Amino acid sequence: MSQLRLFTSESVTEGHPDKICDQISDSILDAIIAADPDGRVAVETLVTTGLVHVAGEVSTSAYVEIPAIVREVVNRIGYTSSDTGFDGDSCGVSVSIGAQSSDIAAGVAKAFERREDGSEDPHDLQGAGDQGIMFGYATNETPELMPMAIWTAHRIAERLSEVRRDGSLPFLRPDGKTQVTLGYEGSVPKTVESVVLSTQHHPDISQKALRAAVRAEVIDPVLERTGLELPDVSYYINPAGPFVIGGPKGDAGLTGRKIIIDTYGGASRHGGGAFSGKDPSKVDRSAAYAMRWVAKNAVAAGLADRLEVQVAYAIGKAKPVGLYVESFGTGHVADEVITAAIRDVFDLRPKAIIEQLDLLRPIYAATAAYGHFGRELPDFTWERTDRVEELRAAAGL
Amino acid sequence: MSQLRLFTSESVTEGHPDKICDQISDSILDAIIAADPDGRVAVETLVTTGLVHVAGEVSTSAYVEIPAIVREVVNRIGYTSSDTGFDGDSCGVSVSIGAQSSDIAAGVAKAFERREDGSEDPHDLQGAGDQGIMFGYATNETPELMPMAIWTAHRIAERLSEVRRDGSLPFLRPDGKTQVTLGYEGSVPKTVESVVLSTQHHPDISQKALRAAVRAEVIDPVLERTGLELPDVSYYINPAGPFVIGGPKGDAGLTGRKIIIDTYGGASRHGGGAFSGKDPSKVDRSAAYAMRWVAKNAVAAGLADRLEVQVAYAIGKAKPVGLYVESFGTGHVADEVITAAIRDVFDLRPKAIIEQLDLLRPIYAATAAYGHFGRELPDFTWERTDRVEELRAAAGL
Ligand SMILES: C[S@@+](CC[C@H](N)C(=O)[O-])C[C@H]1O[C@@H](n2cnc3c(N)ncnc32)[C@H](O)[C@@H]1O
Ligand SMILES: C[S@@+](CC[C@H](N)C(=O)[O-])C[C@H]1O[C@@H](n2cnc3c(N)ncnc32)[C@H](O)[C@@H]1O
Repeated sequence: MSQLRLFTSESVTEGHPDKICDQISDSILDAIIAADPDGRVAVETLVTTGLVHVAGEVSTSAYVEIPAIVREVVNRIGYTSSDTGFDGDSCGVSVSIGAQSSDIAAGVAKAFERREDGSEDPHDLQGAGDQGIMFGYATNETPELMPMAIWTAHRIAERLSEVRRDGSLPFLRPDGKTQVTLGYEGSVPKTVESVVLSTQHHPDISQKALRAAVRAEVIDPVLERTGLELPDVSYYINPAGPFVIGGPKGDAGLTGRKIIIDTYGGASRHGGGAFSGKDPSKVDRSAAYAMRWVAKNAVAAGLADRLEVQVAYAIGKAKPVGLYVESFGTGHVADEVITAAIRDVFDLRPKAIIEQLDLLRPIYAATAAYGHFGRELPDFTWERTDRVEELRAAAGL
Repeated sequence: MSQLRLFTSESVTEGHPDKICDQISDSILDAIIAADPDGRVAVETLVTTGLVHVAGEVSTSAYVEIPAIVREVVNRIGYTSSDTGFDGDSCGVSVSIGAQSSDIAAGVAKAFERREDGSEDPHDLQGAGDQGIMFGYATNETPELMPMAIWTAHRIAERLSEVRRDGSLPFLRPDGKTQVTLGYEGSVPKTVESVVLSTQHHPDISQKALRAAVRAEVIDPVLERTGLELPDVSYYINPAGPFVIGGPKGDAGLTGRKIIIDTYGGASRHGGGAFSGKDPSKVDRSAAYAMRWVAKNAVAAGLADRLEVQVAYAIGKAKPVGLYVESFGTGHVADEVITAAIRDVFDLRPKAIIEQLDLLRPIYAATAAYGHFGRELPDFTWERTDRVEELRAAAGL
């Protein structure tokens, strides 16, 4: 191994069982939010051989046909026949959905600040949908201000799906995982040290042919894009050998089980909350998106080269109970100045987050594979660097 | 808010829906491992109103009666009547278990090193059961070398169950969550800033009486034990108001959805892999336990005051593809010396980890609530500081 410090992140394709669940949960959320932006949604999915089970709590005036959404998502991913291990048209779908707990609904609809302190502020109408801690992170390692290892792992996973879908590698099937180890000098990524990639495939392709094609068509083009040195990359392509059995047949999947892939690939800390299937009244999702927005704007504003922020909520209360800033010695102003500027510029009460980031729209299915962060798509409002000037002013720059 | 830096961690009781699932998955694992230590187990659980669904992949010669285990776990937790929202005797239990994928079984049984490089080393017999990244962490904030915030949140959650079980607060019901915000000066915890606690309860107790009793019997005794200053603690006890509807009726639960509570409360980074229901051939579990053991021994040996280690594997390969050490400027020797000492002293191949930590025993149900780390129980071999002398020697101390 090299003398650089090795840091590793992984990703998975949209055909991975846990990601199937995330996409089903978020597609159901989108269908509800499109019809009823005030709906309350917490939808969990489990997939296993031949079966999708959807459960959770939903309160809405909308009517959505959940089995139809499930079948559409599974087919769209590419599980369309038992050859692939799963079939959207013929799989079993069972649904166990109840209403949101009336205790939770009541506690969240009228925040602690209003109930107990008599606040009249309209942003104190809505309490946090749960307790919890959320982190946000940004680093100037890439133009999108994402850590380089997860960026690379995602791009390889995306490319793996692309060449399956466009027919250039027709022996590929939907399930797949990627993993990238980089060599760092201090906090600067220098080299790619190893790439691990496992992909489901048609039984008739040899591992030798698969490895050569995947390296040439999938891995190498992405590694070129990183701009990193590639002195002596170790490639492990299907290191366990054949991978014909895949999808829910090879491994049961659950919503919310890829939370590090969904965020920063382990480069940042994590509060533990999952995203998919949750409407933005749940701070697990909305506050984590807000903290990415906060961290990214702070790095874009030049307050630090690398920044991690933590926030914490109490269920039913609007204002956070904690805020923590860590700049890892890369700050261009003192951490206290960064903290004060963030408090000045960002209103972190749930209702304010939802308004500022315009979160009551059906935008979530697109977030459920290849990362919630670092993809500068029009609907990913939390990726916008639209608070840079305000932050610089607040920090006296 | 105080001028200290605020850091927050949370915990939940054994009655929380996600934790019910973790305990079911690990109790099934224990039953199999007790009868067949070579069994391969990956069991996921979903709970929702009136229903437990168990799914996954199991290959074993043992016969275990899964519905009976499920009912026993649910009853043991305290969900024994529809009053509490769930009833172990009358809930539905559905089981969808298949065999481990023969592709995975073959790829893991004979590691890459043997298959492709012809190694004869017995520890190269077994490859990693999956790709992935795992972190380990230790800090001298507490005698168990755990971060203080998660330690405190766990002890409050444990105490909440204790006073429910021993009858001292008979109005309590099993579901509950805790959260603790500490004030840090640099990296030293100084004060308790706020405590959030939500607990399910009998409908006849008033919030006022509940708050007073919980504060006196549950929170205050634990805060005293921390030795921290308590200048102006904010208490949020049932901040959303009544919490009668609880357990799976209030919120669906899934295995592996409390991975930050299971580990370091967000004080350390996380690789994303869950633990419960996985036999130790899965490095998500065994290597995360090993990394805790590595970090704890290194801090106990005085190599650093605070240490985070990351390791990464490729599926089917025995040797890790990456190792990363971060001492946050608290090292008493250089990071390279720490890394070299760890490489010297610890064999991180899956088979070696399983042997060194004696992991093929039915010890997992006990890990599935109140934290996998920082509890120095006899079976928690990964908490032993039994490599201190070797590490000191390897680091030249
Ligand atoms: C290895 S499985 C997890 C372990 C599995 N539950 C078991 O019982 O062995 C995790 C993921 O690896 C991928 N996978 C499945 N079969 C594989 C194979 N033969 N080789 C490599 N990766 C595979 C799939 O993406 C799957 O979701
Ligand atoms: C708030 S729920 C998550 C949101 C929920 N799925 C929904 O649809 O609103 C998360 C956890 O909070 C706890 N909880 C349930 N009801 C509660 C209440 N009324 N007040 C406070 N905490 C509650 C339980 O431990 C539950 O598992």
